Amino acid sequence: MNHPTRTLAAFLADLHYEALPERVVSRCEELCLDWLGSALAGKSQPPIPLFERYAQRMGPTGGASESLTDRRLTSPHFAALVNAAASHVVEQDDLHNSSVLHPGTVVFPATLAAAQELGASGRELIVAAVAGYEAGVRIGEFLGRSHYATFHTTGTVGTLAAAVAVGKLLGFDEDRFVHVLGSAGTQAAGLWEFLRDGAHSKQLHTAKAAADGLLAAYLTEEGLTGAQRILDGKQGMAAGMSQDTDPGYLTDCLGERWALEETSFKFHASCRHTHPAADALLALMQAHDLSHRDIEHVTARVHQAAIDVLGPVTRPTSIHQAKFSMGTVLGLIAVHGQAGLDEFQRRALEDEQVITFKERVSMQLDPEVDAAYPKKWLGRVAVTTRDGQTFSQAIDDPKGDPGNTLSRDELEDKFRRLAAFSGGASPTEARQLIDWAWQLREQPRIVPLLQARENTRENKGADA
Amino acid sequence: MNHPTRTLAAFLADLHYEALPERVVSRCEELCLDWLGSALAGKSQPPIPLFERYAQRMGPTGGASESLTDRRLTSPHFAALVNAAASHVVEQDDLHNSSVLHPGTVVFPATLAAAQELGASGRELIVAAVAGYEAGVRIGEFLGRSHYATFHTTGTVGTLAAAVAVGKLLGFDEDRFVHVLGSAGTQAAGLWEFLRDGAHSKQLHTAKAAADGLLAAYLTEEGLTGAQRILDGKQGMAAGMSQDTDPGYLTDCLGERWALEETSFKFHASCRHTHPAADALLALMQAHDLSHRDIEHVTARVHQAAIDVLGPVTRPTSIHQAKFSMGTVLGLIAVHGQAGLDEFQRRALEDEQVITFKERVSMQLDPEVDAAYPKKWLGRVAVTTRDGQTFSQAIDDPKGDPGNTLSRDELEDKFRRLAAFSGGASPTEARQLIDWAWQLREQPRIVPLLQARENTRENKGADA
Repeated sequence: MNHPTRTLAAFLADLHYEALPERVVSRCEELCLDWLGSALAGKSQPPIPLFERYAQRMGPTGGASESLTDRRLTSPHFAALVNAAASHVVEQDDLHNSSVLHPGTVVFPATLAAAQELGASGRELIVAAVAGYEAGVRIGEFLGRSHYATFHTTGTVGTLAAAVAVGKLLGFDEDRFVHVLGSAGTQAAGLWEFLRDGAHSKQLHTAKAAADGLLAAYLTEEGLTGAQRILDGKQGMAAGMSQDTDPGYLTDCLGERWALEETSFKFHASCRHTHPAADALLALMQAHDLSHRDIEHVTARVHQAAIDVLGPVTRPTSIHQAKFSMGTVLGLIAVHGQAGLDEFQRRALEDEQVITFKERVSMQLDPEVDAAYPKKWLGRVAVTTRDGQTFSQAIDDPKGDPGNTLSRDELEDKFRRLAAFSGGASPTEARQLIDWAWQLREQPRIVPLLQARENTRENKGADA
Repeated sequence: MNHPTRTLAAFLADLHYEALPERVVSRCEELCLDWLGSALAGKSQPPIPLFERYAQRMGPTGGASESLTDRRLTSPHFAALVNAAASHVVEQDDLHNSSVLHPGTVVFPATLAAAQELGASGRELIVAAVAGYEAGVRIGEFLGRSHYATFHTTGTVGTLAAAVAVGKLLGFDEDRFVHVLGSAGTQAAGLWEFLRDGAHSKQLHTAKAAADGLLAAYLTEEGLTGAQRILDGKQGMAAGMSQDTDPGYLTDCLGERWALEETSFKFHASCRHTHPAADALLALMQAHDLSHRDIEHVTARVHQAAIDVLGPVTRPTSIHQAKFSMGTVLGLIAVHGQAGLDEFQRRALEDEQVITFKERVSMQLDPEVDAAYPKKWLGRVAVTTRDGQTFSQAIDDPKGDPGNTLSRDELEDKFRRLAAFSGGASPTEARQLIDWAWQLREQPRIVPLLQARENTRENKGADA
């Protein structure tokens, strides 16, 4: 019987490296490097050490897969768990607009961990990642805005995206892809409720999505069966977790459209819902030569999901929570001209000028912005100055969007900052990792990226 | 701030052994033995060996916790995973009526695995299990019938029940219980869609609920924070996964009512939704001295959830799926007088008389039965005989319900059959495990139950 899940599964089974346009391969290398930077930047950030300790307590003492933040070797399950937690915490990982999915932070941890165990090539890793992005984005779009209103799509749909990517590494046929979607979809979880408290669940969601997806794939390889229509069946994900699904998203233009190349890099180190307004405010202040002291009030005119996700954060008490405060983000932009990792670390909670600016920011639902969302993330701000003037500014492609993407130089610069942020990698290692990523398609075999160098260093040390 | 989750958390934090009525302690020992039997009976049953292999591939090669089906020592995470998968597969594990939760198969695997690692006493294990049952049942009732219509409550709520039990072993205070509910609730997953295909997800759900709950508890001990109101918050479980929640269930009569003692033992080896009709048919046939050959048609008059869960199973193709076929269950009862493990194994798919009887069974929604559900699971059947007579039969307390429970002799007998079913334990071991369970409250320290004996035997073998 043919149905959307099976059509998607057949596409995933048939996908091969030669079918990928050059620009998709190239973008995949960029996204891989960008993800690696986010994972390294998560080193020592709360709550990442808790996941490292869990991996040590529950997992093996060695293995083929690498936990990037503590440079330990372990099994794929725990490498995926730790690296996925780590790569989402500084809020610099990529986002796909119309699905509102962060694909990189769930797809790459699972894919890299499995590739290291399986000894896959760089090209196999690329095809697997493309498959994971494609499935994840389409399922996120399928589940629609009503899903995202309560569920953290990167947690729920991320489980399926990770499962598909690992399934591709394992060489699944159409039937196995149907099964793995079933087994991943029935594990899909992640609720937004934690936002109100600034709790650690966002990292738990990505960690679990990557590890659960990997578990689904490895069990499917051994013969575990899953629901045939987990997406659109009577008691499947659509039935239980959405009110506005559209099955067309699952299958339209398969092989013509590539979800991976539609993915945005994050420029600011904050929740993506703040970026359009941040870019618009920056443009407005530059256009009218305003200082933060000139500004009486900013109204960020936003889509509903921004209100759903950012609205609960009224008084951020942690750096991570501040990344979900529209006022803090616009405050950093207004006062310091940027909202990067360092600004958050040093200014978000303690800078009096930022804190007072925060109180002068409000959000308002804008019908035009809301209608365009999630396809487009439009930036619209209105400013009233202390001397009574009013200005407004519109930007249509936030920095990092496919229409306004980051160059390889900008990506290298971002990566170096991420790698250095918590001492995740030395400048020399960062250079080597950049070289590795830009040659990803030529790597004969994916090996541990830092551990191997560690060992070499240790061995040298022992020799000396 | 006080709210239902916090009230429940405070109760869980304060709970101690001396507060438990004797009948609750005693029932907990019985449920523990009953669960152990179900776990042993899962040995070698598909898909349990897949979970064993995953634990070997991803976990450590030793540890303090025991995987019961393959008698390996591992970390608590993987022992919980394997034992929870195993204890749900033969459909003999306990069920709580009004929450429609199978508490044992999620609470005991996580509790036993953690207790073995922590060196907890029998009394600590009992208090932990009572806490897990109490929280799980109340949250299941809170989420209501609309949740169960799409979600497999034992998978979703099971995650919270397991987390609470392990949290109790770890000595959580009120705040930590709030956090662990948040971190467990945001991982809650499990959809019924697999029923239509007879896929393996039911075992995946229990496996993951136990392991995920344990993960939530261990991470919470280390400092992971969770949403404060995961149950009734604006973007919590009620908002995303139910339309008929009732917060009263979370807190009414805490410390007076004990959910654990309301739990039913399973007599028939099938889905609990078939049991009331099975008991009613048996009573009817005995009352009127009918043979299966006399019966033209049986109408099982049932609650809606029975139709939701059993309805998709029209042509069972595996023994496990046959346990969800009302026709097969009533066929076994009519032809063989019982629907136990052996009847399913040898008769459910191959016995022509059972198969033809199955076609003469239909289900019909009964308003009285539906109104009583899930508080009471009423059995109502109507029979038309070949010679044109009609009979009907009602039973109000299916065999195994608290109002019609199994005696310790019956439980021992059931346990011996479960232990022997797949060679999970020898008769001598079964005797020892029965003794262990009946003295659970006196155990100074929970150790591996089979492995220790294995080692002793191996050591003796080596000596000989």
